[in-house]
Amino acid sequence: MEAAYRTGAREECGVFGIYAPGRDVARLTFFGLYALQHRGQEGAGIATCDGTATYVQKGMGLVAQVFHEDNLRPLQGHIAIGHTRYSTTGASHLRNVQPYVIETMYGPLGVAHNGNLTNALELRHQLLQRGVGLSSTTDTEVIIQMLAAPPEVTRRLPPHTDERAGPRWVERIRALMQVADGAYSLAILTRDALYAVRDSHGLRPLCIGEIEGGYIVASESCALLTVGARYVREVEPGEIVLINRHGITSLPGIPARQPALCSFEYVYFARPDSLLEDQVVHGVRQQLGQQLAREAPAAADLVIGVPDSAIPAAIGYSRESGLPYTEGLTKNRYIGRTFIQPDDHLRQVGVSLKYNPLTANLDGQRVVLVDDSIVRGNTVGPLIRLLRDGGAREVHVRVSSPPVRHPCFMGVDMATHTELIAHQLDVPAICEHIGADSLAYLSLEGMLDVIRGSASAPERHCTACFSGHYPIEIPAWLFETEREKLMFEAVWGT
Amino acid sequence: MEAAYRTGAREECGVFGIYAPGRDVARLTFFGLYALQHRGQEGAGIATCDGTATYVQKGMGLVAQVFHEDNLRPLQGHIAIGHTRYSTTGASHLRNVQPYVIETMYGPLGVAHNGNLTNALELRHQLLQRGVGLSSTTDTEVIIQMLAAPPEVTRRLPPHTDERAGPRWVERIRALMQVADGAYSLAILTRDALYAVRDSHGLRPLCIGEIEGGYIVASESCALLTVGARYVREVEPGEIVLINRHGITSLPGIPARQPALCSFEYVYFARPDSLLEDQVVHGVRQQLGQQLAREAPAAADLVIGVPDSAIPAAIGYSRESGLPYTEGLTKNRYIGRTFIQPDDHLRQVGVSLKYNPLTANLDGQRVVLVDDSIVRGNTVGPLIRLLRDGGAREVHVRVSSPPVRHPCFMGVDMATHTELIAHQLDVPAICEHIGADSLAYLSLEGMLDVIRGSASAPERHCTACFSGHYPIEIPAWLFETEREKLMFEAVWGT
Amino acid sequence: MEAAYRTGAREECGVFGIYAPGRDVARLTFFGLYALQHRGQEGAGIATCDGTATYVQKGMGLVAQVFHEDNLRPLQGHIAIGHTRYSTTGASHLRNVQPYVIETMYGPLGVAHNGNLTNALELRHQLLQRGVGLSSTTDTEVIIQMLAAPPEVTRRLPPHTDERAGPRWVERIRALMQVADGAYSLAILTRDALYAVRDSHGLRPLCIGEIEGGYIVASESCALLTVGARYVREVEPGEIVLINRHGITSLPGIPARQPALCSFEYVYFARPDSLLEDQVVHGVRQQLGQQLAREAPAAADLVIGVPDSAIPAAIGYSRESGLPYTEGLTKNRYIGRTFIQPDDHLRQVGVSLKYNPLTANLDGQRVVLVDDSIVRGNTVGPLIRLLRDGGAREVHVRVSSPPVRHPCFMGVDMATHTELIAHQLDVPAICEHIGADSLAYLSLEGMLDVIRGSASAPERHCTACFSGHYPIEIPAWLFETEREKLMFEAVWGT
Amino acid sequence: MEAAYRTGAREECGVFGIYAPGRDVARLTFFGLYALQHRGQEGAGIATCDGTATYVQKGMGLVAQVFHEDNLRPLQGHIAIGHTRYSTTGASHLRNVQPYVIETMYGPLGVAHNGNLTNALELRHQLLQRGVGLSSTTDTEVIIQMLAAPPEVTRRLPPHTDERAGPRWVERIRALMQVADGAYSLAILTRDALYAVRDSHGLRPLCIGEIEGGYIVASESCALLTVGARYVREVEPGEIVLINRHGITSLPGIPARQPALCSFEYVYFARPDSLLEDQVVHGVRQQLGQQLAREAPAAADLVIGVPDSAIPAAIGYSRESGLPYTEGLTKNRYIGRTFIQPDDHLRQVGVSLKYNPLTANLDGQRVVLVDDSIVRGNTVGPLIRLLRDGGAREVHVRVSSPPVRHPCFMGVDMATHTELIAHQLDVPAICEHIGADSLAYLSLEGMLDVIRGSASAPERHCTACFSGHYPIEIPAWLFETEREKLMFEAVWGT
Repeated sequence: MEAAYRTGAREECGVFGIYAPGRDVARLTFFGLYALQHRGQEGAGIATCDGTATYVQKGMGLVAQVFHEDNLRPLQGHIAIGHTRYSTTGASHLRNVQPYVIETMYGPLGVAHNGNLTNALELRHQLLQRGVGLSSTTDTEVIIQMLAAPPEVTRRLPPHTDERAGPRWVERIRALMQVADGAYSLAILTRDALYAVRDSHGLRPLCIGEIEGGYIVASESCALLTVGARYVREVEPGEIVLINRHGITSLPGIPARQPALCSFEYVYFARPDSLLEDQVVHGVRQQLGQQLAREAPAAADLVIGVPDSAIPAAIGYSRESGLPYTEGLTKNRYIGRTFIQPDDHLRQVGVSLKYNPLTANLDGQRVVLVDDSIVRGNTVGPLIRLLRDGGAREVHVRVSSPPVRHPCFMGVDMATHTELIAHQLDVPAICEHIGADSLAYLSLEGMLDVIRGSASAPERHCTACFSGHYPIEIPAWLFETEREKLMFEAVWGT
Repeated sequence: MEAAYRTGAREECGVFGIYAPGRDVARLTFFGLYALQHRGQEGAGIATCDGTATYVQKGMGLVAQVFHEDNLRPLQGHIAIGHTRYSTTGASHLRNVQPYVIETMYGPLGVAHNGNLTNALELRHQLLQRGVGLSSTTDTEVIIQMLAAPPEVTRRLPPHTDERAGPRWVERIRALMQVADGAYSLAILTRDALYAVRDSHGLRPLCIGEIEGGYIVASESCALLTVGARYVREVEPGEIVLINRHGITSLPGIPARQPALCSFEYVYFARPDSLLEDQVVHGVRQQLGQQLAREAPAAADLVIGVPDSAIPAAIGYSRESGLPYTEGLTKNRYIGRTFIQPDDHLRQVGVSLKYNPLTANLDGQRVVLVDDSIVRGNTVGPLIRLLRDGGAREVHVRVSSPPVRHPCFMGVDMATHTELIAHQLDVPAICEHIGADSLAYLSLEGMLDVIRGSASAPERHCTACFSGHYPIEIPAWLFETEREKLMFEAVWGT
Repeated sequence: MEAAYRTGAREECGVFGIYAPGRDVARLTFFGLYALQHRGQEGAGIATCDGTATYVQKGMGLVAQVFHEDNLRPLQGHIAIGHTRYSTTGASHLRNVQPYVIETMYGPLGVAHNGNLTNALELRHQLLQRGVGLSSTTDTEVIIQMLAAPPEVTRRLPPHTDERAGPRWVERIRALMQVADGAYSLAILTRDALYAVRDSHGLRPLCIGEIEGGYIVASESCALLTVGARYVREVEPGEIVLINRHGITSLPGIPARQPALCSFEYVYFARPDSLLEDQVVHGVRQQLGQQLAREAPAAADLVIGVPDSAIPAAIGYSRESGLPYTEGLTKNRYIGRTFIQPDDHLRQVGVSLKYNPLTANLDGQRVVLVDDSIVRGNTVGPLIRLLRDGGAREVHVRVSSPPVRHPCFMGVDMATHTELIAHQLDVPAICEHIGADSLAYLSLEGMLDVIRGSASAPERHCTACFSGHYPIEIPAWLFETEREKLMFEAVWGT
Repeated sequence: MEAAYRTGAREECGVFGIYAPGRDVARLTFFGLYALQHRGQEGAGIATCDGTATYVQKGMGLVAQVFHEDNLRPLQGHIAIGHTRYSTTGASHLRNVQPYVIETMYGPLGVAHNGNLTNALELRHQLLQRGVGLSSTTDTEVIIQMLAAPPEVTRRLPPHTDERAGPRWVERIRALMQVADGAYSLAILTRDALYAVRDSHGLRPLCIGEIEGGYIVASESCALLTVGARYVREVEPGEIVLINRHGITSLPGIPARQPALCSFEYVYFARPDSLLEDQVVHGVRQQLGQQLAREAPAAADLVIGVPDSAIPAAIGYSRESGLPYTEGLTKNRYIGRTFIQPDDHLRQVGVSLKYNPLTANLDGQRVVLVDDSIVRGNTVGPLIRLLRDGGAREVHVRVSSPPVRHPCFMGVDMATHTELIAHQLDVPAICEHIGADSLAYLSLEGMLDVIRGSASAPERHCTACFSGHYPIEIPAWLFETEREKLMFEAVWGT
């Protein structure tokens, strides 16, 4: 895939939660966020609760830049939630960094959210009509203010007949789930409990781990491993998981619908060492490469992958095709945000700050370049040129996922229709555009056969960006504007 | 008065607002806040609106530390409000810095507030019950969320019969005024207007100025002068002033009650060049000194004042008594926040970082030391010792206001009962405690004669901290806890 | 005097040194620099030595901004020197911040310097010729590298016949004094001693204090008081004071010449509570005002001073003339570096960010405005306009020092000839230029009568900026370029 | 190899220089340093010269953290040198960051240095004896001050008979080369020229590139590629390359001795896309892996490498052995400096923040783990445990270089004798210590056969850390203290 950093698809956020009396939950959350850093580099935050008070610390930048011993120490308590936020090209504001924490009638409430509500604008409008002023443009604020409201206000259904006293957080969460459309994986902190919630399709991942003294929820299992926790299972679509001093309890949220975990998690987003649906992502990616080799062989001398995300698929392609695997591009490991731009001359000569070709490996060779996906198509072209400059005789691009033709409204800020190269051009035209000697994508069927583990299993993944079949109803206006968030920004300003 | 910085009374905030198409309103607000810096050094913020979007910038520290060209430039528009926030000894948080800006049903809303709602906890409870989650512990958030709610929800009175379309901000402000008890001077920004609002007693100051192209509201007139504006008048108690493209309009808010401008503004808070009730504060302070000389003469050789706030009263005392005026203490002009503390030895020898005695002037002299007020009594004692170390033979303390015996619940975070030295000790005991040769305070009647301009005029000032007569009803629990804010903090944590 | 901050004369630096085993010398130095902050706001630094290693910390900004507990703690040892550096309008560099510390053949060497070597360029050239590369543009680096060199290299005189082993720092210092022309007050730190050194005219101040456990040297006695030390005496012109484990020793440096302490220290630079030549500066300034009243009476109603530096002289003028003293201008106490500039309109209307008039005191009055000095003449004019805007009927300016007609080459970065208004215009023309109703300066004789304590005492002060009589020979080229430093900058770049 | 970051061998610095009138040399230097970031992450700096003045900017941290448009813009001129400095575990000081720039008799002089002078202490002593005070503990300051001195002073040889006027930089550089022992690759900036200098053994790399409008020198060719330059050749051992307005000139420095380029550059340091001695490093590493497979086969199911540095060798091992290649460990790409440490429990369970095992690939497998080197042996053990936790049945470690048994004194801050595990233990003991099923290293002969390109070519590389044969004489005391730098620090303090 093209560079995820600033130019391609962006995953919206990593979520972490822990309930573990006697453990340093803020520190464990820090390390969990560290492992989820690939899901968001714009900002990070941690909120804790000690049963009475809540403590919050957030900041812009990488997790290791936001936190240090001095601001971690005050985060007392035995419950914590944390969040890493994706990078935007435009304005980023501290006020949009999660977790959100508010004071409610029944004490503190904190929310960390990964996903995107497709009816956020409608829910936002309802809140504004109720007279709730909102201080950010995020759907997370919509979620937390809806949870703060009494259930009678929130839900569409009539109130329960057996009204009990108390915050009734479960009822409120359930009421939210009944009205919230779209994708959401939530870690919710209250005065005495941690909740993990997943939408009825299970669009975004969320899993549970066990640690000495308590439980953890995280967007990906790599965060469990990193803090020494044991993987237990995924949170089920529509499920509410309650973790408190009585242990862990599964509660019905809303009825599960057709499972539809984002297939792009397998293709690109998830860390290769994470488990999704009991499959290690790296293994799935190797198999995608193998399937790709079967579907789209190439007359070539060697196989290379776009570092780092396409390496597993390239290894799989090599293994299946019998073509030797090697590295063809060096990636500058210290690349980071720099605001210093190349001068005109450098731009003209197409200098690359991020990649250099490995000339010794490429010289005179016919190269298969495996990428995991092509979104906008503005990164793979320069890489092909680099490979040719480095001596490659032919460059055959093989992509271990189908063409991305449709925008995502379920939590991935991918691109608009017009920005998606495969929406604009067919495969031969893309091949010409990027300057490859040949180009082939993995078929949708081939991809699904691999990621569902067995060709005969029923479909259970979201393939909307490839197929255009959205598992949930997308409001027409959203297709038109395509970017709910941007619309909010226009209303709201900086 | 003792050092206002960190140890004595603290004024809660300076407020500024401007409506001036064609002018650089953010820059003018910056200079206005610069002039209001004495009303709050903890943090500062500016919000602007260009008719569509709002822009906000806030930070901890002095105005000149928070703002620079780079973060001032994005603050576009023709309407602005600004705020300087007072210093606290405890935790200070960016989230408590004003102005507050939210999105409402009818567009953006911003509030800058000086004062203190005595029923903030009750109103806060109402909001929480309505299901509005709150993200700070300030009464300003209570105010802005109440303004965001539809009038039917907010006010105690039945809805108007002639419901018109539109935001009806005036109605909302009026509804707020009907339920909000205590002190408030507000600058409110909406999409197309600036509002200035003052509580029914006019407890905290707020005045109006005219500038080429528009109007300004500010806590003190010194801010008008600093931005080249002409002083027009004060906002009346209970009045709503609307400034928009139609000019300036006075609207009824709630009926004015007994005027009760804080007399401590005259004694200490206000800048000497500000006008309060058409009187220049410096002149009033000189007269307080003259009255003090008449009430409490001293057999002495010279008169000095505690720099800087008591200098005008000392000049007045000198003029009335005929005793020569001079300076007796040097103040380090570059003093600022330093977190480096003296070591034990320095503490023992009572070294002063802020003041040094002017030995040449003091040697062998009987000195009248004029202070404007004594709150906790822990600053004047060391000054007396400094004067004696500097050679003074006798030190007679004269205070240009009556003893402070009662806490303030109307926007001044002064001290609790037990911290007020005059609540604990009578005048002779205070004299002994601070080590003066004699001590006398100005009488309440003497002070009032001066500040109301004529002895026969009816009373129109709040003297609660001196007299214990509160112009508004103070809830009993507030007397018990004395510090609403601290209570919130305990519930809420850091 | 006009605003010293950024527009007028600038004192080059405050110097502090301490030798006190068992005391926290870094902390004491911090407080000493705090008291010397008025002598330099650009940067500050502290160097300490524990007998083996040296530790240095420097930074740009005010003392309280540069130091905090975390960077003060590592400054171990029982000897320390510190420095505050003046503000420049142009480029300021961390590399120019003092103290300088280097490693020499005989261990560490640190230097803090106040003054200006008039032959720095020549000495610099000698060092470069010897092959010593220099990394800054300051004369302090010249001094420290000359001290590092063996005496045979440094001095003009033949080597002593009784050569002893060891660093022979005293000899090196003496050798430096023999070749260095101009003004210098130095605190020098070596592995086991503190040295205080003053040029043969005593152009810049330097005094000695005693503290429990050791001794202190400082530019002004206010720093002694602030750290709880007892004033002992001044370092004599040409003297070397050695402080080490044997106590304090006076050593001959070079023969003292005509004493010539800078008279501007009395007029403006020194803190009013400092002692110079056993006189408290505040007292001297009051007497200058009294003398001014005798020499230049005015038909007026009241006397005010330009805050803060001219207040003592104004009090003296009032006392001698019998005209009542009051305040006429409020100064914003929170003024600090701000890079935000007024917009064009504000500039046109002559808005003042620093001063506001006290209208109640001025209205219809004939005012005597006392200033301590006029250097460039661009500050007093706007103040006069402010006073008139504030209602003053007449403004009579009285200056408590003679006209400044000549640049200083002895450590004060005052101005060039062409920038000095009194070099360009005579008194009536200045009066017209600044828009006063009348203008009078104190006579040179009158000033000298006051500051030398008795009219019959022989002259012992530098009056070069007033009289043009320089106590030392100024190289012709220096008169031409006027600003040695700027020349260096041109050669050297940023 | 184990993690280079903070625990293993550290390369001392990357060097860059450019002479290119009409180009934005500061920006090009920035991008060059960006590409050399792997050679030093502690600090970075750039110095430029426009023919008259010099401009310098340095800072702590990564290149992209130190520079931004605002501090790059002032770096005017057509000549630039730059430097990236390695990370230390101990104290890091801005004053040690390069390039060094000084003013000399003949104008500005700047030096960027990679290497280590083995007689720096002796040369430093000579400078101190000459009376030159030194302000840092680096050998770079020794080099620059020696260059500043007149040749008569510097060199051991008698002065040339044909003395010409002018700076005679070439003579000075030559004089330095005659007395400086050890490793040095220098980029030197003067008022009108750029010099590139390499020690007589060519211990550290340095190469030349051509760019439109000028020439570049850089530690590695990857920096040339990154700025769009064409690789020309390496600077020869003992050569002085002069680049000025006359073009590029090769000048004799000192006679070349036995070439001895650091073999560790091939093994670990250099970026895989760099050319060393006309060989692409990545290709050499693959061949080292192939040779390793021939020398030390393993009965296993698959081959993995320690990311990222050992991947090429692992690919080579796979290719030669026929065992399939895959990835077995995920590396957190966002790892950065974090000062937050795991709590005790995490430490006990051996949690890894940097690596996670890829369980799907490892489960039940016999794994060959290829590493490039083992220095201290404290990283590979935990990785083996991670692999076993991840399901690996057997772990056979193969190292693509010989055992590291000797410290480096030629510019690599590797470790002391006692820290080197292969100095303490033999191979079976290391195998047991790290918990591997088997362990084998590449033979010295095998490594040399690969890196010299042909088994019959004469030896031309430094293998001191493997063989103990130092190409230069190492002073006995250096063996004893082992760390010249640390010794300096002890003398000098922080």
